[in-house]
Amino acid sequence: MNNIQELKKILYLGPKGSYSDIAKQLFTDYYSKTCKFCEINSIGQIINLLMQDNSELIGAVLPIENSVEGIVRETQDKLNLLVEHGFYIYSEARLLISHSLIGYAEDFNDIKIVTSHPQALAQCREYLNKTFGDTLVLEPAFSTSKSIELLSKNNPEKVAIGNEYCASLHNIPILDSDINDEKNNTTRFILVSKMIPPRTDCNKISVVFSTENKSGALNRALTVLENYGLNLSYIDSRPSRKELGEYIFYADFAGHIEDNNISLALIELQSQVKTLNILSKGSIVIN
Amino acid sequence: MNNIQELKKILYLGPKGSYSDIAKQLFTDYYSKTCKFCEINSIGQIINLLMQDNSELIGAVLPIENSVEGIVRETQDKLNLLVEHGFYIYSEARLLISHSLIGYAEDFNDIKIVTSHPQALAQCREYLNKTFGDTLVLEPAFSTSKSIELLSKNNPEKVAIGNEYCASLHNIPILDSDINDEKNNTTRFILVSKMIPPRTDCNKISVVFSTENKSGALNRALTVLENYGLNLSYIDSRPSRKELGEYIFYADFAGHIEDNNISLALIELQSQVKTLNILSKGSIVIN
Repeated sequence: MNNIQELKKILYLGPKGSYSDIAKQLFTDYYSKTCKFCEINSIGQIINLLMQDNSELIGAVLPIENSVEGIVRETQDKLNLLVEHGFYIYSEARLLISHSLIGYAEDFNDIKIVTSHPQALAQCREYLNKTFGDTLVLEPAFSTSKSIELLSKNNPEKVAIGNEYCASLHNIPILDSDINDEKNNTTRFILVSKMIPPRTDCNKISVVFSTENKSGALNRALTVLENYGLNLSYIDSRPSRKELGEYIFYADFAGHIEDNNISLALIELQSQVKTLNILSKGSIVIN
Repeated sequence: MNNIQELKKILYLGPKGSYSDIAKQLFTDYYSKTCKFCEINSIGQIINLLMQDNSELIGAVLPIENSVEGIVRETQDKLNLLVEHGFYIYSEARLLISHSLIGYAEDFNDIKIVTSHPQALAQCREYLNKTFGDTLVLEPAFSTSKSIELLSKNNPEKVAIGNEYCASLHNIPILDSDINDEKNNTTRFILVSKMIPPRTDCNKISVVFSTENKSGALNRALTVLENYGLNLSYIDSRPSRKELGEYIFYADFAGHIEDNNISLALIELQSQVKTLNILSKGSIVIN
């Protein structure tokens, strides 16, 4: 039994020390400790691997709203494909993004170059200006973790911006903490899996639907949810790309697929919209 | 008269040759030809300048949904501040994002390094793999335009990814066109201004409102729009950051502030929501 368990793999967006690497630890309570986490280099590759229907690959941790490394809609756009292969959102968690200044410099006066992902550098712009003035050279990197990994003791004048976990993985000193200008910065991650989540205090149903391009079409869909006492916590729309003026809507509301009112609401919703896909059967919202 | 006009400035996100630089040209039909466009280095700086209530600065072109250079919600988050200073969305346009391979290499076999913004490199991943195999070195840059600007004739083995307009500004050859893996990639830009847009065939009202955290609160708001025959073309929600479970909603629908049903709908909407802000009084949707 243990041997079989040990073969099971959960994929995540690498490299080691990335914010996704930290986020995956938020999900471990809900998974067997004997699962193995595997780092994969891109979201596209993770999706492709899951779609191969390999029974060893039982899930993946993916960023779905990421303000750090430029990933915006790549995950959300592919959720439909995953659902076709039996994967649903199993749980979701928010990670507070806190950047640190990391490197081998012994004195702030020695620091001449700061390297990181452009978005992370932008998020610390005020701090860098105030601390180092405008002679500081900014150097772009592929990711916060890559910028840390490439630091060298022989070049103490170059430091990086990223997370402390990654610094500790590479045994590099932390020079300053919580340096992002906006302190309230969180990124949302999901764990996708073929398992149905257990009922908890905070299960969430996620659906995507399209409506006719007519006045009130969305409203009719939302009336169904209201009639069953469901409260929308999230809604998002975007052009369907198929027909001009046709939109698809992403919506979240509290509930579990085994709740009576949920299954009835979903059946009625189906009759009011053009297409309906269920992305989560009751994902567990962590923290 | 002309002299006064010539002092007026419209800001945009630089550097020269950026996708914002191209986008600003989509808006010129709706503005005096004697206005001067000024490049500014960050969205935050543009917002700060507009808020100084300097009568010379009459508007700005800002990306609001950008899939290339990592700008996600920075503009949308600041729209409320701009409205407080009398700026509204005047018009909006979509720009098709088409990346080119740009550089001095005379033969594809000479190309060893490709540089660009990480997001642009990611958007051309399949093309690069197919064309150059896996020995190609990818080098991150701050922006697509910066990656082009820094190319040198003495280093023909290094090429960049970005737009053709930027290549032509720097007089650098285009080696291949339309190389992004996803062809249907557009970015949405807005022009903000203190002027009220004229009535056209396609005016759009944009509002942001918050509701109580109660079942059906959003639905009641949307019912108002339906009662006045208004059709929602866009909706987006996100946590208000003020109170747990409280959401703010961004919504767009066709109309102009001087239309009778619009003004009545807005008055009734106000009575159904917690807070309401009008972001656009009838912005012109271009293309």
